[in-house]
Amino acid sequence: MSETITLGLIGAGRIGRIHAENLTRRLPGARLLAVSDIFEEAARRAAADYDIPFAYKDPRRIFDDPEIDAVVICSSTDTHADFIEQAAAAGKHIFCEKPIHLNLERIDRALDAVAKAGVKLQIGFNRRFDPSFQRARELVASGAIGDPHILRITSRDPAPPPIDYIKVSGGIFLDMTIHDFDMARYLISDEVAEIYAAGEVMVDPAIGEAGDIDTALITLKFRNGVIGAIDNSRRAVYGYDQRVEVFGSEGVVMVGNVKPNQAVVADAAGVHSAKPLYFFLERYAEAYVAEIEAFLDALREDKTPPVTGLDGRIPVVMGYAAWESYRSNRPVQVKLAD
Amino acid sequence: MSETITLGLIGAGRIGRIHAENLTRRLPGARLLAVSDIFEEAARRAAADYDIPFAYKDPRRIFDDPEIDAVVICSSTDTHADFIEQAAAAGKHIFCEKPIHLNLERIDRALDAVAKAGVKLQIGFNRRFDPSFQRARELVASGAIGDPHILRITSRDPAPPPIDYIKVSGGIFLDMTIHDFDMARYLISDEVAEIYAAGEVMVDPAIGEAGDIDTALITLKFRNGVIGAIDNSRRAVYGYDQRVEVFGSEGVVMVGNVKPNQAVVADAAGVHSAKPLYFFLERYAEAYVAEIEAFLDALREDKTPPVTGLDGRIPVVMGYAAWESYRSNRPVQVKLAD
Amino acid sequence: MSETITLGLIGAGRIGRIHAENLTRRLPGARLLAVSDIFEEAARRAAADYDIPFAYKDPRRIFDDPEIDAVVICSSTDTHADFIEQAAAAGKHIFCEKPIHLNLERIDRALDAVAKAGVKLQIGFNRRFDPSFQRARELVASGAIGDPHILRITSRDPAPPPIDYIKVSGGIFLDMTIHDFDMARYLISDEVAEIYAAGEVMVDPAIGEAGDIDTALITLKFRNGVIGAIDNSRRAVYGYDQRVEVFGSEGVVMVGNVKPNQAVVADAAGVHSAKPLYFFLERYAEAYVAEIEAFLDALREDKTPPVTGLDGRIPVVMGYAAWESYRSNRPVQVKLAD
Amino acid sequence: MSETITLGLIGAGRIGRIHAENLTRRLPGARLLAVSDIFEEAARRAAADYDIPFAYKDPRRIFDDPEIDAVVICSSTDTHADFIEQAAAAGKHIFCEKPIHLNLERIDRALDAVAKAGVKLQIGFNRRFDPSFQRARELVASGAIGDPHILRITSRDPAPPPIDYIKVSGGIFLDMTIHDFDMARYLISDEVAEIYAAGEVMVDPAIGEAGDIDTALITLKFRNGVIGAIDNSRRAVYGYDQRVEVFGSEGVVMVGNVKPNQAVVADAAGVHSAKPLYFFLERYAEAYVAEIEAFLDALREDKTPPVTGLDGRIPVVMGYAAWESYRSNRPVQVKLAD
Repeated sequence: MSETITLGLIGAGRIGRIHAENLTRRLPGARLLAVSDIFEEAARRAAADYDIPFAYKDPRRIFDDPEIDAVVICSSTDTHADFIEQAAAAGKHIFCEKPIHLNLERIDRALDAVAKAGVKLQIGFNRRFDPSFQRARELVASGAIGDPHILRITSRDPAPPPIDYIKVSGGIFLDMTIHDFDMARYLISDEVAEIYAAGEVMVDPAIGEAGDIDTALITLKFRNGVIGAIDNSRRAVYGYDQRVEVFGSEGVVMVGNVKPNQAVVADAAGVHSAKPLYFFLERYAEAYVAEIEAFLDALREDKTPPVTGLDGRIPVVMGYAAWESYRSNRPVQVKLAD
Repeated sequence: MSETITLGLIGAGRIGRIHAENLTRRLPGARLLAVSDIFEEAARRAAADYDIPFAYKDPRRIFDDPEIDAVVICSSTDTHADFIEQAAAAGKHIFCEKPIHLNLERIDRALDAVAKAGVKLQIGFNRRFDPSFQRARELVASGAIGDPHILRITSRDPAPPPIDYIKVSGGIFLDMTIHDFDMARYLISDEVAEIYAAGEVMVDPAIGEAGDIDTALITLKFRNGVIGAIDNSRRAVYGYDQRVEVFGSEGVVMVGNVKPNQAVVADAAGVHSAKPLYFFLERYAEAYVAEIEAFLDALREDKTPPVTGLDGRIPVVMGYAAWESYRSNRPVQVKLAD
Repeated sequence: MSETITLGLIGAGRIGRIHAENLTRRLPGARLLAVSDIFEEAARRAAADYDIPFAYKDPRRIFDDPEIDAVVICSSTDTHADFIEQAAAAGKHIFCEKPIHLNLERIDRALDAVAKAGVKLQIGFNRRFDPSFQRARELVASGAIGDPHILRITSRDPAPPPIDYIKVSGGIFLDMTIHDFDMARYLISDEVAEIYAAGEVMVDPAIGEAGDIDTALITLKFRNGVIGAIDNSRRAVYGYDQRVEVFGSEGVVMVGNVKPNQAVVADAAGVHSAKPLYFFLERYAEAYVAEIEAFLDALREDKTPPVTGLDGRIPVVMGYAAWESYRSNRPVQVKLAD
Repeated sequence: MSETITLGLIGAGRIGRIHAENLTRRLPGARLLAVSDIFEEAARRAAADYDIPFAYKDPRRIFDDPEIDAVVICSSTDTHADFIEQAAAAGKHIFCEKPIHLNLERIDRALDAVAKAGVKLQIGFNRRFDPSFQRARELVASGAIGDPHILRITSRDPAPPPIDYIKVSGGIFLDMTIHDFDMARYLISDEVAEIYAAGEVMVDPAIGEAGDIDTALITLKFRNGVIGAIDNSRRAVYGYDQRVEVFGSEGVVMVGNVKPNQAVVADAAGVHSAKPLYFFLERYAEAYVAEIEAFLDALREDKTPPVTGLDGRIPVVMGYAAWESYRSNRPVQVKLAD
């Protein structure tokens, strides 16, 4: 594939616009030729804002364009699998936001389509591209902390999403913890065998009325013996709390939060510093660039993208295991078809 | 009770000697009149080192001494309940190291004896007297972080005890996690309703052969809805790792480790600082003084000691619940007789 | 001025390329139409890399282009004043890297030309646009630390520049400390009345042979009574060390270094984290974008740029005062024509 | 000398009582036999509080007691030299609080008396015994940071002493900076050749009316080329600010403040932690024990105490050089008789 890769963007919502900005301004080897959105006006606005030549309502216009090498799918979750299949059928490489789908059979059909078409697929688990988490993984993988024994992930959002979103999101384990499931696999380089999930509604009763929970604590048992805990909350008043820790036989690696500035004030009341960066758009700004850059590199060098379709499927399996555990109050095996 | 309180010390091992040093050198309102130890030589050595007037083999000499107001019990765990009963019968107030006993009925009989005698009893959960954990509890209790939602405790020892000790210790949940169970109750000011315990042998196979585990992750569900996780390891190569975190509706309080010095070096390889204080003798040196000071205050002011017999009993119940959960791989209810 | 501002870039060296990248990729309201460099090949390479329509050897082609609203001057220091005058004569607004010139009369003539032409001029003191230093200034200016009493600036480079550069740089006080002089004025919002400079050659004897020093400690007395110290070194093996502190009647604000990642490792040897970001390109990457954005905003809104010609002149006066102080080993008055 | 050393304490004020407490409770190898104070009531109170057998008004009773091996002098500064001479004449070893005297000839006569008598003398520069500063010195001395280039000391008190004390204190450089002069010599292991002192009255005009200043910035040039800066304030609202930094060819060592607890709170307003320990009694509590322990060790092992009479004299010379520099606004040579 030539150095410059031509792309089409499907979905011009919040995440779509981030990818549009990065593709047009931060990634000189990318050429974003077209954008589509079911709300054509959104596509047109993105096209104007980011100098994208074509704006469509119908993504078929993108799939049918022979100039386009790859698509970036940021539409609503329920459309991901369909668009993956259509893109694969059209021979386009695919970057798709997580999750692939909330239905595992639908995921499997989509992954089959990708395999048959022989196109490349990368899933948007952006946190893998954060320099701090990358450094943590390198340290674990290199043996700097010996054999890993205990994993801890703290992942708390600054504010819950709208209730309407929560209702179609698959719930906390498939919408929020899914990122932490991916991070767990990424840091430990092994699969989770069993999950036990505890949860509560503590932030907003409306979340409970929608059938979801807003506070969770998930125990993971990996195949290699590592035991881990993930804690989640939908609302941390001090901002996005994203910390990980891997403890091992020769040491521990810990990743703390990132702050917008380094100013520290000491006064008669104490010592004060800034809250962590507010949310994922701020904290993972560079990771959004890096994940697409890695996707483009995989296309150019004809290698497997760093987050595969299977990497997209397994956290969904884990999310359902977590729901089953929460509902039955029992540990649940994670059944991976392997 | 007069300002100066006269005490007898039962047990002159490692912890006994710490109490001897603190009673004779750090607590001017205390007069340590006698020490006993089943190894009389140990009692004599402590008496010589800390200017204690009398050294005995038989603790009865202490119980029978009308000058003695209170006893500090630091003998081996299996003798605690007997000595509590004998001290109570002799009308002595009692400070006793944890745990009271590994048998719950034996604990109950001892607590009954204390209640009948009308003497005061304080259990040696020293961590409650650490200034950082005290500050954390104050902040939680004062509402500074709103309603608590999530509790996290990391408690890792620098090195495992001898296998012979492990065999009689009651295992990790009754020997090590017991402190964290107490810390959990102390920080949240509520009881744990259910426990789920995961564990592994990762540090030393001999620990497994002794029927114990060395790595554990325990999920707690409190009656008030708070969910918590405790992680334990018998060996952290970087020293004693003692951290807690309480997350709530209005913020979070975190307590980190304490270091022996504040020197930070930056060189071509990175930025480096000291490891945490090595183990409990260093980390909790001041807490050992403060807990006895609080006991003496309770005697002087005729008030309930800050760590009661019930506070000593409940973590044992939790420890057994943890073992049952670990063995059955199921969450287990914590049954408190209330 | 219209929303889109058309610019020409003079000088395609290291800093010039940074501005080229930022103008073409990060600042959508800017249109970089042309680049010139005395080495035409450098101009051509920059034009190719950043899609700049025109590349010239002669900057006159830029001054003469009626489409161009403003120029960014990144050529060698000795050409800044000439190009400022030519740009002003051509009615172009000017962003110029520091220092304006090493000759104060030459600076004054250039500033006169700017004043006569009525164009805007901003000097490239990029550190003012670092979010941490901005926050520190806001806190001082808002009274959060009361009246300022003491200023401390630590500014150490990771490695010295080539000796050939040092020879024409004006020496450490005009090349390196000049940034700290600007930072001092920025943080305290007052002028320095007197300077005392101590210095040594400790990093490399060749720097001493070139007539310069590589290690310095400068005492500042401000008109308002604040006293401050700047320390400089040409080589910190742990990377770029950029810290400031303002102490006042009601508290202190401190700004520490920025790290490339948040990973912290604890092992048997200690606790380790990453070195600070290597040098100015990494540490001030965002500040380079923000300073040009502020320049463009000043043009659009027809207001005074945030770093004026006088802000460019005064640190040069301070640099000469520091040299005089160093050579005479006496405090020296800073003579500002006001 | 036998293992147990018998001491007399001269002066039962604030510092005297600290030494009394440490000698009687923390240092089992010491036997504090007598205390004297010009206010006999103070001596009696100390004797009662710390179980000291004898309390006198007249220190001669201590000098004349053949049982006493050594004296600890904590009386008012103007009496130190007299008591040193009397103690030396009586053959007692001497621990004396800083400064020896404000008059250099008086110091020299006292040191002569000590030399003639062949007794040992240690001066109370307690900060040398702080574990963090000791660690910093070890790192510098071991070459961990290469050759030292730059020294930074920040030393700010939480609140100024009474004006009446200030009037007889010798002023900031002899009362407060004297500790930092000692720290500078201790960290760099070399003598200061030249001093330049800037100062202001910013905290309290009454301090200025008393002929003193309350804010200072002192530049040090060491014989070995190291340049250093000390900054002082009589009032830091956030507590005792005691930081040092030594920068060298291979790295930097920094010592930060010590906090009373490790609790960190993050809430909607930011991230907050405790202020540093309030003042020297809290920050240097352990250093006060360690310095006397080192004195007792020097007696037992018949070796030179770690802070000699010369170590007590030189910072006074530096203090006068600082005053001369401040008054003349010129760098001043430090003239050591060597």
